[in-house]
Amino acid sequence: MGNSFGKLFKITTFGESHGKALGAIVEGCPAGLELDEEKIRLEMQRRKPGQSKITTQRKEEDEIQILSGVFEGKTTGTPIGIVIQNSDQKSKDYSHIADKFRPSHADYTYFEKYGIRDYRGGGRSSARETAARVAAGAIAKQFLQTKNIQIQAFVSQVGELGLEKDYTELNLDLAEENIVRCPDPEIADRMIALIDQVRLDRDTIGGVVTCVIRNTPPGLGEPVFDRLHAELGKAMLSINAVKGFEYGSGFEGVKMRGSEHNDAFVKEGEEIHTVTNHSGGIQGGISNGEDIYFRVAFKPVATIMQDQESLNEAGETVTVSGKGRHDPCVVPRAVPIVEAMAALVISDFLLIAKTNKLAEI
Amino acid sequence: MGNSFGKLFKITTFGESHGKALGAIVEGCPAGLELDEEKIRLEMQRRKPGQSKITTQRKEEDEIQILSGVFEGKTTGTPIGIVIQNSDQKSKDYSHIADKFRPSHADYTYFEKYGIRDYRGGGRSSARETAARVAAGAIAKQFLQTKNIQIQAFVSQVGELGLEKDYTELNLDLAEENIVRCPDPEIADRMIALIDQVRLDRDTIGGVVTCVIRNTPPGLGEPVFDRLHAELGKAMLSINAVKGFEYGSGFEGVKMRGSEHNDAFVKEGEEIHTVTNHSGGIQGGISNGEDIYFRVAFKPVATIMQDQESLNEAGETVTVSGKGRHDPCVVPRAVPIVEAMAALVISDFLLIAKTNKLAEI
Amino acid sequence: MGNSFGKLFKITTFGESHGKALGAIVEGCPAGLELDEEKIRLEMQRRKPGQSKITTQRKEEDEIQILSGVFEGKTTGTPIGIVIQNSDQKSKDYSHIADKFRPSHADYTYFEKYGIRDYRGGGRSSARETAARVAAGAIAKQFLQTKNIQIQAFVSQVGELGLEKDYTELNLDLAEENIVRCPDPEIADRMIALIDQVRLDRDTIGGVVTCVIRNTPPGLGEPVFDRLHAELGKAMLSINAVKGFEYGSGFEGVKMRGSEHNDAFVKEGEEIHTVTNHSGGIQGGISNGEDIYFRVAFKPVATIMQDQESLNEAGETVTVSGKGRHDPCVVPRAVPIVEAMAALVISDFLLIAKTNKLAEI
Amino acid sequence: MGNSFGKLFKITTFGESHGKALGAIVEGCPAGLELDEEKIRLEMQRRKPGQSKITTQRKEEDEIQILSGVFEGKTTGTPIGIVIQNSDQKSKDYSHIADKFRPSHADYTYFEKYGIRDYRGGGRSSARETAARVAAGAIAKQFLQTKNIQIQAFVSQVGELGLEKDYTELNLDLAEENIVRCPDPEIADRMIALIDQVRLDRDTIGGVVTCVIRNTPPGLGEPVFDRLHAELGKAMLSINAVKGFEYGSGFEGVKMRGSEHNDAFVKEGEEIHTVTNHSGGIQGGISNGEDIYFRVAFKPVATIMQDQESLNEAGETVTVSGKGRHDPCVVPRAVPIVEAMAALVISDFLLIAKTNKLAEI
Repeated sequence: MGNSFGKLFKITTFGESHGKALGAIVEGCPAGLELDEEKIRLEMQRRKPGQSKITTQRKEEDEIQILSGVFEGKTTGTPIGIVIQNSDQKSKDYSHIADKFRPSHADYTYFEKYGIRDYRGGGRSSARETAARVAAGAIAKQFLQTKNIQIQAFVSQVGELGLEKDYTELNLDLAEENIVRCPDPEIADRMIALIDQVRLDRDTIGGVVTCVIRNTPPGLGEPVFDRLHAELGKAMLSINAVKGFEYGSGFEGVKMRGSEHNDAFVKEGEEIHTVTNHSGGIQGGISNGEDIYFRVAFKPVATIMQDQESLNEAGETVTVSGKGRHDPCVVPRAVPIVEAMAALVISDFLLIAKTNKLAEI
Repeated sequence: MGNSFGKLFKITTFGESHGKALGAIVEGCPAGLELDEEKIRLEMQRRKPGQSKITTQRKEEDEIQILSGVFEGKTTGTPIGIVIQNSDQKSKDYSHIADKFRPSHADYTYFEKYGIRDYRGGGRSSARETAARVAAGAIAKQFLQTKNIQIQAFVSQVGELGLEKDYTELNLDLAEENIVRCPDPEIADRMIALIDQVRLDRDTIGGVVTCVIRNTPPGLGEPVFDRLHAELGKAMLSINAVKGFEYGSGFEGVKMRGSEHNDAFVKEGEEIHTVTNHSGGIQGGISNGEDIYFRVAFKPVATIMQDQESLNEAGETVTVSGKGRHDPCVVPRAVPIVEAMAALVISDFLLIAKTNKLAEI
Repeated sequence: MGNSFGKLFKITTFGESHGKALGAIVEGCPAGLELDEEKIRLEMQRRKPGQSKITTQRKEEDEIQILSGVFEGKTTGTPIGIVIQNSDQKSKDYSHIADKFRPSHADYTYFEKYGIRDYRGGGRSSARETAARVAAGAIAKQFLQTKNIQIQAFVSQVGELGLEKDYTELNLDLAEENIVRCPDPEIADRMIALIDQVRLDRDTIGGVVTCVIRNTPPGLGEPVFDRLHAELGKAMLSINAVKGFEYGSGFEGVKMRGSEHNDAFVKEGEEIHTVTNHSGGIQGGISNGEDIYFRVAFKPVATIMQDQESLNEAGETVTVSGKGRHDPCVVPRAVPIVEAMAALVISDFLLIAKTNKLAEI
Repeated sequence: MGNSFGKLFKITTFGESHGKALGAIVEGCPAGLELDEEKIRLEMQRRKPGQSKITTQRKEEDEIQILSGVFEGKTTGTPIGIVIQNSDQKSKDYSHIADKFRPSHADYTYFEKYGIRDYRGGGRSSARETAARVAAGAIAKQFLQTKNIQIQAFVSQVGELGLEKDYTELNLDLAEENIVRCPDPEIADRMIALIDQVRLDRDTIGGVVTCVIRNTPPGLGEPVFDRLHAELGKAMLSINAVKGFEYGSGFEGVKMRGSEHNDAFVKEGEEIHTVTNHSGGIQGGISNGEDIYFRVAFKPVATIMQDQESLNEAGETVTVSGKGRHDPCVVPRAVPIVEAMAALVISDFLLIAKTNKLAEI
């Protein structure tokens, strides 16, 4: 349990950081979708390590192999099996932590839960697992593109340094033009400098990813428990290092009065819209057709290049030394992961919504 | 789809605000639990309208009826059917909004999704639906008490007015001694005054509920998608009016460095603990035995006692007038709802965790 | 777990034979269906005890109450809560078996599984539970009628006495014109006489129900595990007293050669059909548009009006005496239950199939 | 949807007959199980083509690769990814049927359902898919062996030729000593001769596999829908070519009176048993500790070495010619598939049953 996500458009993943391979099975992708493998590879590139000076310098090519579910370039409606080999395993690197609990990692909890753990690189708890999500999400994205639904995530905060403008005032396409993936070039430069300093300090720092989803039709989301934002929230909170999720006005909205927070309906031509969008495109757990936007908080990476005191499996005091090649800040590489999970959520609800009205069945 | 929550300890709910009744089916509660109906009633009292001057003055008795699954005072392992009659229906109150889309309510989205809606009091989208959750959660709580697991939620912020102390510095039992459910009596008084003012302004205001779960054993939560905090997040985000969720260090943790954020392991007697708890009791999506704590953001209630311009189903401009008896601030009554959902999540994972290790099967 | 059936069109049931009430929550019924409560009542009548001299003489009115999900006569897409009160409880009747394990009943297995059981009338294991299924199935049937899909079940065998004609040679409407629900009037008379004799012998006897589903579109069923016939099989095997399921050629087909068993395709006007239908309307787990038909075997009812030696919870030898009012043969009343479960399966797959092709989304 | 089976001990499969590979993800196998890969290979050998003169002469090595979830020879509680390469693809063999609907195959229904299909060797509808089930089931079997639960299937009928003895009168271990997998050596010889004759006739024939499960504890199965036999039935009906399922007395039980069918309880030492076992080890949908046994009907394979008239995608009359290497009778190779699916069902219910009683949590 816990390795599947989604109901109709659904993924199931497997794989450890340093096992032979990781992968996913994607179910429910409608038949007849022309699948562009190159687009999947581009998403993998956005997530992969070693892509810039502010990410880990590990080299992982993250080549995907599609084993099933696609015939003559089109999806067939059968499950799409995906495998990503682990080429750069270097298992020896991890013998020094084999029986140690690294602080704020999952070593201790996996050991308590299962009584056994693959200690190499965090095993299943490694963020390497998200490679499978990005591959699956890239398929979902291609499905959504047939409906003109666009998902764009970007870095909106690193440490204390955040965007000052609202996403509507920015050209989000600029985010992919710098290595920190922030759509404001000036703040991007400062973020890069900050991360670089943190790296030199042999430390790590947190950040926030904001995501915007455009052109979603009204009607997505299944009350009362599977509200659209509840599934988006779960999807995001299931990503490594995530500590918080808010959509629309979020935690700031708490401070507002109803009279200012309410989004007035207005007619634009034949379409119904809202004047403001504190609702974040979701009302009563269902999309209303406005932009969906949300923020995802990532903690500072737990692996730091410093010695830390800790315990081992025998309960003895030990020193955990930072080694290897790790990210000083996770958010630049988290951007495609956030998009992938968002694409999976929207795809799933899009399918479910096909069954809501008798008149459309 | 969307009316069930949980996998083994699972609830399914039904009911509209002004239908005949609402209710829940609780599955998977282990057999042999002595069920105290009085405790369920007490939880219902905490949620019910009309309990104080700062909540809605509607009168709903919220009497629960247990129809099955309990025999001679004990659970039998079969599903527990619960029904709560809707006594105070007053449907006439709602004719004035029958075809209007109230701003920031779910009227428009339900209409778009289903093509039909029960407009009386918001129908299924009404927070009245949470009565069924509280009843079910009260059963989960009794199950958790057999394991000594304690769940306490309280109001930590109303508008801009928040607690200044950490939950560990407060006596949380004090929260139930004032009508706003804030454990700091002085700030509670100010919150009450603030809500009262908002009410006089015929307006509403948002707030934050914090929840603390104590004595959870290590090992709860199912990576990678059903992380403990991901399910808690989904549970909270599925509650009416919730806009955000964060656990442990949350959004503030973003600003920290890894070297300060990491929770060092330490031995206390034979037990392993952490010195700090930025992890919020959850590492790698699995409980580590420390206190679990999280914050839930509630927006200002959308129903305000003021005229608002809006649209109707025909797309015509109409005026929506605030009528009826509504909460100026939802958080005091949200406290038991947050606890109920937390209890359901923990109960479910407690059962699943019984199947993790071969040695325990 | 185990109290829900279906994925999109889904029911969850609760209730014991002698508890306060039993009921169901029906999810996923598309919005906008005009629901005729009278039609539900008619289905309840077909299942209810006391309807003829060959069924149990217990009186249960089985009045249903719809508590939610319907507004102004139409389904709203929200869950439909149904409750059926247990009026004729007579719990005293059951004190004589409180700690005894009745042979071939579920008394022993429930006791072993849960350590506690509601012994009154079999508790949750009673076939009374199927009342909730018939109510839910009656809603599914109304949904299917909008697609012109017809489901007809009938008694095809009682003891050794079976129909000699194929269903295609019979007027199935005749089944409802006699109390045993067999479409061949002559054989029906002999079946009634046989059951009557069995009843006089204070014994019981088994039977077979055959079910035919017409006008199902091609494409229903989800390979590889949720094949249409696999779900139909599970649905039928989940009914009390069922011991076997076969569809199309079934166990007899085993004896055939491929060259005679294969169903040749043929064009009739613009439609594709098969000349024979050994496939029972299902190929590769997916409907092909031909009639779906299957047979369901019911064992003789375990409650007989004779003394039987058995054990009690303490492991002591005891005598179980037949008392009360029970069915000598279950199949006449099983007919609407089989139809109800079939309707639920088809409804569910009809919804899922709306999401198979990109071109239709 | 449709590619997963099980709730806690769960598999998800992917793969087409002539795609690159097929495989499975096995979730929920308890951590700490010593996994013997050799035992998995042995099960694969039992299913693989080309193993004897009465099975297809295709050569497929069916080498499995375990990609995750096992560390230092033990399961870790994380998902086990399995891949089986398709080495003997020979796709050219299938161009002659690219647009033809083979009679009683799934060609037509897949085309109707998805609008596109991988015609090579039946694609996803091929029985090759069961290779992934056998691999997953071999893991489940090893889990069950730690509880001493034994599953043995065997061929009990080919065409009209069936075993005359009850399984309790036979040494089931003998089944693996002949190529048809029938435990009565004399009848085995006749079955082999029959299949050989059918093969020479360029035809196919059906058969029955019987399965016996020993040492199951009482308490497995989840009423009311997930009855043990209902899940077993679904599991079996999900196997290619299966047309029927019956357990215990099955369809024959229909003919019996309750007074002969009921299984009397009796004490043997400290244990409770039944004198007869018409219940097939399952009462009220829950195991009672007696042997579980059931029969599974397989139709004659649809691919015959004869010309058949059919239609193509354009609706034109075409001739389908039997080519390639196919099984004249599927049951000898179906034996390990039946066992695999049974092992998955029992493993799943064994885990779920750990959560039934409060006293054991």
